[in-house]
Amino acid sequence: MSDDISRRLALAEQAAREAGAKALEYFNHRDQLVIETKRDAQDVVSIADREVELLINGQIARAFPDDGFLGEEFGLQAGSSGFTWVVDPIDGTSPFVNGMPNWCVSIAVIHQGEPVIGVIMAPCQQECFVSARGQGATLNGKPLHVDPSRTMQNHVTGFGANSYVTPERVGEIAAGITAVGGNFFRNGSGAMMLAWVAAGRLVGYYEPYMHAWDCLAGYCLVNEAGGWTHAFNTDGEALLRGAPVLAVAPGAKADLLKIARL
Amino acid sequence: MSDDISRRLALAEQAAREAGAKALEYFNHRDQLVIETKRDAQDVVSIADREVELLINGQIARAFPDDGFLGEEFGLQAGSSGFTWVVDPIDGTSPFVNGMPNWCVSIAVIHQGEPVIGVIMAPCQQECFVSARGQGATLNGKPLHVDPSRTMQNHVTGFGANSYVTPERVGEIAAGITAVGGNFFRNGSGAMMLAWVAAGRLVGYYEPYMHAWDCLAGYCLVNEAGGWTHAFNTDGEALLRGAPVLAVAPGAKADLLKIARL
Repeated sequence: MSDDISRRLALAEQAAREAGAKALEYFNHRDQLVIETKRDAQDVVSIADREVELLINGQIARAFPDDGFLGEEFGLQAGSSGFTWVVDPIDGTSPFVNGMPNWCVSIAVIHQGEPVIGVIMAPCQQECFVSARGQGATLNGKPLHVDPSRTMQNHVTGFGANSYVTPERVGEIAAGITAVGGNFFRNGSGAMMLAWVAAGRLVGYYEPYMHAWDCLAGYCLVNEAGGWTHAFNTDGEALLRGAPVLAVAPGAKADLLKIARL
Repeated sequence: MSDDISRRLALAEQAAREAGAKALEYFNHRDQLVIETKRDAQDVVSIADREVELLINGQIARAFPDDGFLGEEFGLQAGSSGFTWVVDPIDGTSPFVNGMPNWCVSIAVIHQGEPVIGVIMAPCQQECFVSARGQGATLNGKPLHVDPSRTMQNHVTGFGANSYVTPERVGEIAAGITAVGGNFFRNGSGAMMLAWVAAGRLVGYYEPYMHAWDCLAGYCLVNEAGGWTHAFNTDGEALLRGAPVLAVAPGAKADLLKIARL
């Protein structure tokens, strides 16, 4: 592993763990949070999201001042090093503000258009998923591998959607997964569900419209665990746009691509 | 609270906690479990389900030998006291065997056709939900109340289905929840999602076909937290049959009943 990557990987894990601890403090006192809405009544945010992003941003700016940084809450700061950090401080804000444990901190680093580092920290489960390109994926230090014997028929598929997706399409996807003998889960955190694909807990994940901060860390994890991911365009302005996200173990790839029409 | 109820409530909580601890042992060594399938490839079971049910059944048989007992794995043993225990040793076996934390132990007691005790223990979160008729509901000792200001539009709705439900109907429900401005979660454990309705984490839960052991403990919790539940027929053979299950906070009742066609 190049020194450029290994130094950033160490920081990514450290920042994710510290950010997770800070977010958990907010979570444990969430009755004091003021909840605001963004795009619609289902799209919520609080000071916890912003403070946690600032914590991560500060750590990275100090260690790698020439790196770019894209966060869900404060947007893009361009860099000059060729490395860009892509961060969702709290993925699953809706579960977070409602007291459910399905939320996580997601930190990716992209280089030459590809996610080369992906770290996801789930504080309520005290699970830290870590990956770097060519170095494999781990959960709390234990190597992760997708299971080639699992299919949509004998395992569970993750699925997500937001208000960019029509109700009709949401229904089609739910029916489509069921019709092939599958079963779908949806826990409100796409990043966590992607980490669960890497860990073999889900056989795949599909969401018609996700942003880079939601998916790139999970993509690195899934790729390094032996799964397949649908390309996410990170060139220029495309990095800021939503796009379909699909990550899957090999035995479910054909079925899930068909349902996703990809 | 009558002595008949209070003695059973104490045992229900104790049994749920001990059963949860035993199930958690199996969960932490799940790579050694042999997974069998029941109705279809998505309907799984292991020795953990059976051993945990036997543990609960043994405790109840010793303390209340004249009570009836209905468990998911071993069926109904009739009693003569007028009290019947209704138990799902591991609700969410699919998450359990696949390493996800969304599973729980569910213990209800019915009397004169109604659930008078409902206890749900979620070992991965170390959360014990406890309720008895007219006595309120608690989570780890803290009182639970549904929030009358929450609706399908400003909160998340739980939803479940199994292979008794057609793919078309699954799609309709998913689309229906989305079309009214809602958002649905599905975590593989209907009992846990019902407990989450009582805790205000979800605004409601609907599943077209569930069994008594999946829902009665959650129903008692939701009723005692101030929510509304669709009646589940427990008379005679009906206790063994599946039926629609719906539990909801008052502000979401009209919308969710319409989607459920109830």
